[in-house]
Amino acid sequence: GVLGSGDFARSLAVRLVRSGFRVVVGSRNPKRKASLFPAAAEVTFQAEAAKKADVIFVAIFREHYSTLCDLADVLVGKILVDVSNNTEINHHKESNAEYLASLFPACTVVKAFNVVSAWTLQSGARDGNKQVLICSNNQEAKRTIAEIAQVMGFTPVDMGCMSSACEIENIPLRLLPAWKIPIFLALGLFLCFFTYNLIRQVIHPYIREQKNKLYKIPIEVVNTTLPCVSYVMLSLVYLPGVLAACSQLYYGTKYRRFPDWLDQWLQHRKQIGLLSFFCAALHAVYSLCLPMRRSHRYLLIETAVKQAMEKKMTVWVEEEVWRMEIYISVGIIALGLLSLLAITSLPSIANSLNWREFSFIQ
Amino acid sequence: GVLGSGDFARSLAVRLVRSGFRVVVGSRNPKRKASLFPAAAEVTFQAEAAKKADVIFVAIFREHYSTLCDLADVLVGKILVDVSNNTEINHHKESNAEYLASLFPACTVVKAFNVVSAWTLQSGARDGNKQVLICSNNQEAKRTIAEIAQVMGFTPVDMGCMSSACEIENIPLRLLPAWKIPIFLALGLFLCFFTYNLIRQVIHPYIREQKNKLYKIPIEVVNTTLPCVSYVMLSLVYLPGVLAACSQLYYGTKYRRFPDWLDQWLQHRKQIGLLSFFCAALHAVYSLCLPMRRSHRYLLIETAVKQAMEKKMTVWVEEEVWRMEIYISVGIIALGLLSLLAITSLPSIANSLNWREFSFIQ
Amino acid sequence: GVLGSGDFARSLAVRLVRSGFRVVVGSRNPKRKASLFPAAAEVTFQAEAAKKADVIFVAIFREHYSTLCDLADVLVGKILVDVSNNTEINHHKESNAEYLASLFPACTVVKAFNVVSAWTLQSGARDGNKQVLICSNNQEAKRTIAEIAQVMGFTPVDMGCMSSACEIENIPLRLLPAWKIPIFLALGLFLCFFTYNLIRQVIHPYIREQKNKLYKIPIEVVNTTLPCVSYVMLSLVYLPGVLAACSQLYYGTKYRRFPDWLDQWLQHRKQIGLLSFFCAALHAVYSLCLPMRRSHRYLLIETAVKQAMEKKMTVWVEEEVWRMEIYISVGIIALGLLSLLAITSLPSIANSLNWREFSFIQ
Repeated sequence: GVLGSGDFARSLAVRLVRSGFRVVVGSRNPKRKASLFPAAAEVTFQAEAAKKADVIFVAIFREHYSTLCDLADVLVGKILVDVSNNTEINHHKESNAEYLASLFPACTVVKAFNVVSAWTLQSGARDGNKQVLICSNNQEAKRTIAEIAQVMGFTPVDMGCMSSACEIENIPLRLLPAWKIPIFLALGLFLCFFTYNLIRQVIHPYIREQKNKLYKIPIEVVNTTLPCVSYVMLSLVYLPGVLAACSQLYYGTKYRRFPDWLDQWLQHRKQIGLLSFFCAALHAVYSLCLPMRRSHRYLLIETAVKQAMEKKMTVWVEEEVWRMEIYISVGIIALGLLSLLAITSLPSIANSLNWREFSFIQ
Repeated sequence: GVLGSGDFARSLAVRLVRSGFRVVVGSRNPKRKASLFPAAAEVTFQAEAAKKADVIFVAIFREHYSTLCDLADVLVGKILVDVSNNTEINHHKESNAEYLASLFPACTVVKAFNVVSAWTLQSGARDGNKQVLICSNNQEAKRTIAEIAQVMGFTPVDMGCMSSACEIENIPLRLLPAWKIPIFLALGLFLCFFTYNLIRQVIHPYIREQKNKLYKIPIEVVNTTLPCVSYVMLSLVYLPGVLAACSQLYYGTKYRRFPDWLDQWLQHRKQIGLLSFFCAALHAVYSLCLPMRRSHRYLLIETAVKQAMEKKMTVWVEEEVWRMEIYISVGIIALGLLSLLAITSLPSIANSLNWREFSFIQ
Repeated sequence: GVLGSGDFARSLAVRLVRSGFRVVVGSRNPKRKASLFPAAAEVTFQAEAAKKADVIFVAIFREHYSTLCDLADVLVGKILVDVSNNTEINHHKESNAEYLASLFPACTVVKAFNVVSAWTLQSGARDGNKQVLICSNNQEAKRTIAEIAQVMGFTPVDMGCMSSACEIENIPLRLLPAWKIPIFLALGLFLCFFTYNLIRQVIHPYIREQKNKLYKIPIEVVNTTLPCVSYVMLSLVYLPGVLAACSQLYYGTKYRRFPDWLDQWLQHRKQIGLLSFFCAALHAVYSLCLPMRRSHRYLLIETAVKQAMEKKMTVWVEEEVWRMEIYISVGIIALGLLSLLAITSLPSIANSLNWREFSFIQ
């Protein structure tokens, strides 16, 4: 049974019908809404739908839960599946599912399917790659819903008892939470180093020697800034591990919790590392673009012309040559190793490595 | 039970035996064929095998289905699993599974395992990463086969009732169907722009000034063509979304189906976007290769020599310098953003993002 | 029930409690250890824990298995889960699980969970992406443990009967076994070609003409070595397939096993191919870096100055120009095709291709 006639209710009905279930839809206006649902689904009044079905998906907004109270008698002993989402994180004190459970104490409430979009339900692949997080205080009901999810082509994930509902409801609202701190960190570092390099490469020569080097800003200044950011970020990946080891040595035990800031830091290492790799890769691309620039060309021609007019044949400086050869070749090797780290952090590859292989590569 | 003694029958028997099942193989010539099968599998005559087994895999070609009619009495009430494939899409009017079901109305026919190759059965990993698509009109039989598939280390995917058999049989025959239109589109665009650039950069200077610039064809002309293709493709990714929104506004409803061409277009957006990224990446590589060319070197030296002979010291053109610096730096940023889009379209990463994160990045 | 109070026992108890199981922990010193376990788990003496639980995880070292012999009477008929790992591959003659089974013939022993780390148990995602390999001689017990693993958020993989235990215990100890031969092969080839190129480009000119070209070692010599390695590796990817076909034609049958060396070779093709791609990509990056070097700049200026002093205007050599243009453009196309191969070898993409598509791309 599906109560509601919105987008989600419709997509849910479509998917259930396609998966071989008999579906009855409860709507307040069954006649007008029937055309929206697949022909195989029976569309009727809410009370009747509630009577006919054993498992009932409540696909209406939290604000309208109370309108279902008239059905309380019919719903006794049935499984209610709360599929709702909020519009803000922690908008209400209790989760939607717990609120529903408090309204219908005689029903078994299961939280599920809220992390799946209407689009995925209707058009998504049935390949089990999409997860459905499920929680409930009733093991039996949870298992029933997990089986339905599996038949529908999803992977059910047991999230424990009802107290996890709040967490599950927040998932579709989160926006890359693990990336926020690392990205602001990278931006902050970039700004600092950019200012320093701007003063050093552009403003200082202008003040001291009145030379106009503004053209260096878009590429050269950015290019000297990126490796600084990359280095600092990379060191921030390995530092917390050292601090954690020191803390364990100091307290003489593994079982003491780390302070919160260290814990947070340890958990963000992967993101910090990937941003460090991103900066290093950008630095490589910027460096490769240097000889493409007009300014490079003009400076080269100017030097050649000057040399020719002074009749100087030798421009070769052995030390400069070696410095650049070694700099470039170390740079390439470093980038190659960082690429390897980045590739092994792809979920599908990381899952195929055992712990020993993973730590060997890291 | 496995009926047949081909490659697939053999691999199936190997996998079943390894998964702990008792296997009986039915062959028309059990003595000669027994050596091909694992020792734990009993190889006997077809009728006897059919008698002993409850679930029977029919691993013979569609053309020979009718030879099984002698066994009809023994097969009554048993589950027949059709594992066959065709050599052409929609070769026969009805699917192999439906044909088998029509020959044995007293049996329950299930379509399964046709998307798995003999090689995967025998040597592939048992890690559940490979899917087995299953369909049947009998829920109970479907569940039995799904359980067998799971124990064998595959992920069973319920594809509904028997009418999906045709679709399932076409899957191993399809050849990147979603890519066909986008690739031809890209090739067409490439040809148009290439012709235009060829006329503009090579043929026109030749006719007007008799200058031989044929050397530009392999790299420079291709390099000016690629970003044009990339731009047009990228705009084709975002255009259908706008058209769809307009159509919804015009008809005043979300529930009206889009015309077929728009629907097709909307479904190909991902492929068009990836090809656009591919062209942009190629353009970046081509551009980076420009200073490596001999022609670049010769032109540089010629300019320098000319300047030296005319005793002209200044070659610097501020506007040209700035144009190039800004062009390159915007190009790098654009490519970086497109890379991000391309990475998030990898299946294993896309699955770990929720809808809000995905649309934020897009 | 969980016997043991180490890291793994603790993490296992945490995960089991979170998955909704009732957990009893058996420890030799329950009072001191109780604080380490979650509050919901009952910590008691080993004998009592063994009495209360039906499924008992033996989370102690193999060396201490014999200390459990006192509990033999209480354990009769129960399922013992061996979660242990060794520190070396094939350290003992028989696997830990078989040893445990020999100590407790009246129990059903199941090998499982040893491929999961304590960290994954406690903090890893419950998303079913991590596999738990299970083997046992008792189908019923295996199914029970598989269900427990599924509820805990893992993907159970049936590995057959107890004789696979040894193989399962070796898995967490292996260190990229498929990569060892290909990597040594690549290193060997690199060394050979590097020596040859070093003699040709550096030592020979020095001996014959006393020219100091040592600066070429870090980049130019490496850069001419990489494509040689890449080519040889790529040919080694396609050669064994040809040999296998010849062998099949010679013996006139598909069913004869290939000799071991050919079998090994066939299985390493993917790794050899990826290393070939890695070398090709490095070659591309090195080549792109060539114009960034000081030596490139100095040579260019020297040529220009020389030309200017000799009043020679024309430096253009049509043949050299064409050679380079074609070389670069073929190189880019080859790298693009190799990238496509490398991308389709990512597990998450390879799994979404059918056999026909995969062989088409290859």
